[in-house]
Order: sequence, then C-alpha cells, then structure tokens
Amino acid sequence: MHRYKLIIEYDGTPFCGWQRQAGRLSVQEALETAITRFSGEVAVTQAAGRTDAGVHAFGQVAHFDLSTERDPFKVREALNFHLKPHPVAVIEAEAVPQSFEARFSALARHYEYRILNRRARPALDMHRVWHVPVRLDHEAMDHAAGLILGKHDFSTFRAAECQASSPIRTLDRFFVRREGEMIVVGASARSFLHSQVRSMVGSLKLVGEGKWRPRQFREALDAAERARCGPLAPPDGLYFTHVDY
Amino acid sequence: MHRYKLIIEYDGTPFCGWQRQAGRLSVQEALETAITRFSGEVAVTQAAGRTDAGVHAFGQVAHFDLSTERDPFKVREALNFHLKPHPVAVIEAEAVPQSFEARFSALARHYEYRILNRRARPALDMHRVWHVPVRLDHEAMDHAAGLILGKHDFSTFRAAECQASSPIRTLDRFFVRREGEMIVVGASARSFLHSQVRSMVGSLKLVGEGKWRPRQFREALDAAERARCGPLAPPDGLYFTHVDY
Repeated sequence: MHRYKLIIEYDGTPFCGWQRQAGRLSVQEALETAITRFSGEVAVTQAAGRTDAGVHAFGQVAHFDLSTERDPFKVREALNFHLKPHPVAVIEAEAVPQSFEARFSALARHYEYRILNRRARPALDMHRVWHVPVRLDHEAMDHAAGLILGKHDFSTFRAAECQASSPIRTLDRFFVRREGEMIVVGASARSFLHSQVRSMVGSLKLVGEGKWRPRQFREALDAAERARCGPLAPPDGLYFTHVDY
Repeated sequence: MHRYKLIIEYDGTPFCGWQRQAGRLSVQEALETAITRFSGEVAVTQAAGRTDAGVHAFGQVAHFDLSTERDPFKVREALNFHLKPHPVAVIEAEAVPQSFEARFSALARHYEYRILNRRARPALDMHRVWHVPVRLDHEAMDHAAGLILGKHDFSTFRAAECQASSPIRTLDRFFVRREGEMIVVGASARSFLHSQVRSMVGSLKLVGEGKWRPRQFREALDAAERARCGPLAPPDGLYFTHVDY
C-alpha cells in the first residue's frame, strides 16, 4: 500500500464536522468520495483532529492508503477537482511511509479562535467568528490564559461526550491578543480533549466581561468539575490551523 | 428632514450589486427595506460607490433622510436587527447636516483587491478572492502599478457601460504586495470609472504572469482604448474598504 498525507483547508459551516455521520454531510465523506472518484479505490481517511460541526480548518491533516502509487501533485489536483463544489481544498499532498499516522504521529496541534468584538454583527465574517458585542478586556483574558499553561487535569474544560481515557493534558501555548475589532485566542498542545478550546474560550469570555477575575479562571480549572465551565463558545470562531509532526 | 450617514459592511456574493434592480436582490433594497421596517418611512439611500454584483464592502458609505429625529445608536441597532439574515451590517450611524452627500462629498475612495496565488482552490475564502493558480511576480506587478499613478485618460480601464462624462481620473495610490499566498492590490482615487479597479487588476495579472512587461501596462493606458485592456478580474476579490470625507 502507498500512504499519502494531505493538508486540508475547509469552511466548516455546511458540515456536521470532520467525522462521518449517517444522513449528514461530513468533511470526511466529501474527501473520501473524491478519493474514490479519482482513484477508483475505497479509502478510509484518518485525521489529526475530529473537528465539530461548524469548526473550520486552515491546516487539518489526514492520511489514507492507495494500492497504486500516484504522483502526489496529481493526487492534490484530482482531489481538488472532485471536491467541488464543497468548501474543502487540499493544500498539499505528500507520499509518506506507512509509519506515518495523521493522528498518532502528531507532536503539536494548533488552534485559533476569533471573536469579533464590536456592536455591529458580522457581515463578511458571518459564520467565521463569535460575535461578542460587549467590549471585552483582552488583557485580563490574556492574563487568565497564562495561568493555566502546563500539565493539568482539564476535566472542567472537557465535553461530557469526550472519549479520551485521561483528562490530563499539557497546554503549551494559550494567549489572547487584540487586532482591532478582532480578539484572537491561540492554543497549542500535543492533544486536546473534546471541546477543550471552545470550553476554555467560553470561560475566558467571562473574564473579558469582568464577570470572573483571572484567578477564578484558574480556580475553575483546579476544581476539575465540568459544572465550573462557562458557557461553551460557538464553533463558528474556531480554526484548526496546523499540526506539527 | 434629518440626515443620517451609515458605514456599511457586506458580503457581495448573494447580491446583484449595490443598486436596485427589478426582480433581483440588491444591497440598497435590503437596506431600504430595513429602514422602512424600523422607521415606518420610505427612504432612498445614496451610496458613495455603486459596487457591482459580487463585490464586497468593509466600509461603503450611504446617507438617507428621515422626517423624525432618531438617536444614531438606535438607528444602527435597529437596522442591524432588520437587516437579518442578509450579510449586511451597519458598522456606524451618525447624524449629519443636509450638506453631506455620501457620493458627492467624498474626497477619496479606497479599494482592495485580493488574489489567492496558490495551486489549491480557496475553501475558506471561496467567493472572497480571485484564485490564480500560476505563480505571479508581484514585484513586476507593483512596478507596473506605479507607472500609471496620477492624472490620466483611463478609457482603457473603463467598462463600456460607464456613464461618467469624462474618462479622466487621478489615481493617488496603486500598489501590489504579497502576504504569503495572498497578493493584495490597493487602489485609491477621488473617484473611479465603472469597473476601473477590476480592469486594472485584470491587466496587472498579465504582468504578473510575464505576458506583459510593466511598460506594456503603461502603454495600454496611454492608448486610451478599451480593446487594450486585459480580461476583467472577477468581482469576488474586490473590496470597497473606506471613503474619506
């Protein structure tokens, strides 16, 4: 078998998420259908991260196997042709050894969360940002974010349906910065729990509004109780930006 | 009468352009319908620039009159409520004197054109960029752009349907820069001819591909003949960014 690694960009809006679900359109199904159309083979793709419905990606990574060797350049071109009209594009395709696993070989996953912080609702960024009309204190949010870096039990920021065997994760990078009307949150870790980024951002918003002091954000983490999490941030603002191997 | 100035953002994709057209949805109609819904008055809006179908705006400016005085903050909030679900948002609303005319008081109009210059088609930026898969020489494009600054007869870069009485315009700012995979073209002038920016960008692309030398771009301008214009750039990449008064 010949293995191929893909870097994939998508607009998550029309999809039920990365993973296949009966009767709903997933990114995985769109991609696997395109693989079959160009190669005549039925392939199963595995992704670095199973993004939820409405979550976007600039640099999702997936791998799949074909029985025939193909020029990676042609793989990319053919997939992009057959992926139309879905908002999914293969940015890069590469031949990789069988030892490469998009999910298990990942050393770091990087996410970005975008909050449009202005009174007027988004027009050009509709479905691409979380619209928060109340002015947020991004410096307080950034301070709070810095308080939970490192290795912790992230049970507070973990969805009830999370299937990971352990709630322990190591957060390597977590910061908040303002770019005009946009507040950008960056998060990096070897791996994340289900809905961890949206859970953390939803709680950080409470800090930005002044409802929580930064220390309370850290206390919510330390409690290791889902009930202590703020309301989940919507998927619209979340981007899976890239994966390091 | 009480006059209001609006700064408006929109995604041009679903619209036939700014201006009302029978049987098609325009930004103007969406906005005027929202004005009537909140005020009960029939108002006619006038815009700084009549953008074409598919062209976007971060900062279109329009004005309209109401017989009743209203709090500008409430005007903005009410319009944004009634504009739903259209991808149009009022960023700012301001009370202005009757002497203010969105179109005729403008001192400078600013446009940006975005070219996604990579092999893979856009996913997140679908309908928001011109996708040019062949590598463009942005430095040659920028050099060519600099050759047509100033006051000229822009007949070469003017749509056949342009209704302006004169083809003479003064281009104050016109440059090309690369931001990773994106090539951004900036253009500023007191006013532009119909399709002038898309005409200039379409011709600049020929320079970027090496089909024209920069000097040929200037020669095309000097010929003052529409037939010398390169193929029109699509509306998807064009943004009306702001207006100075």
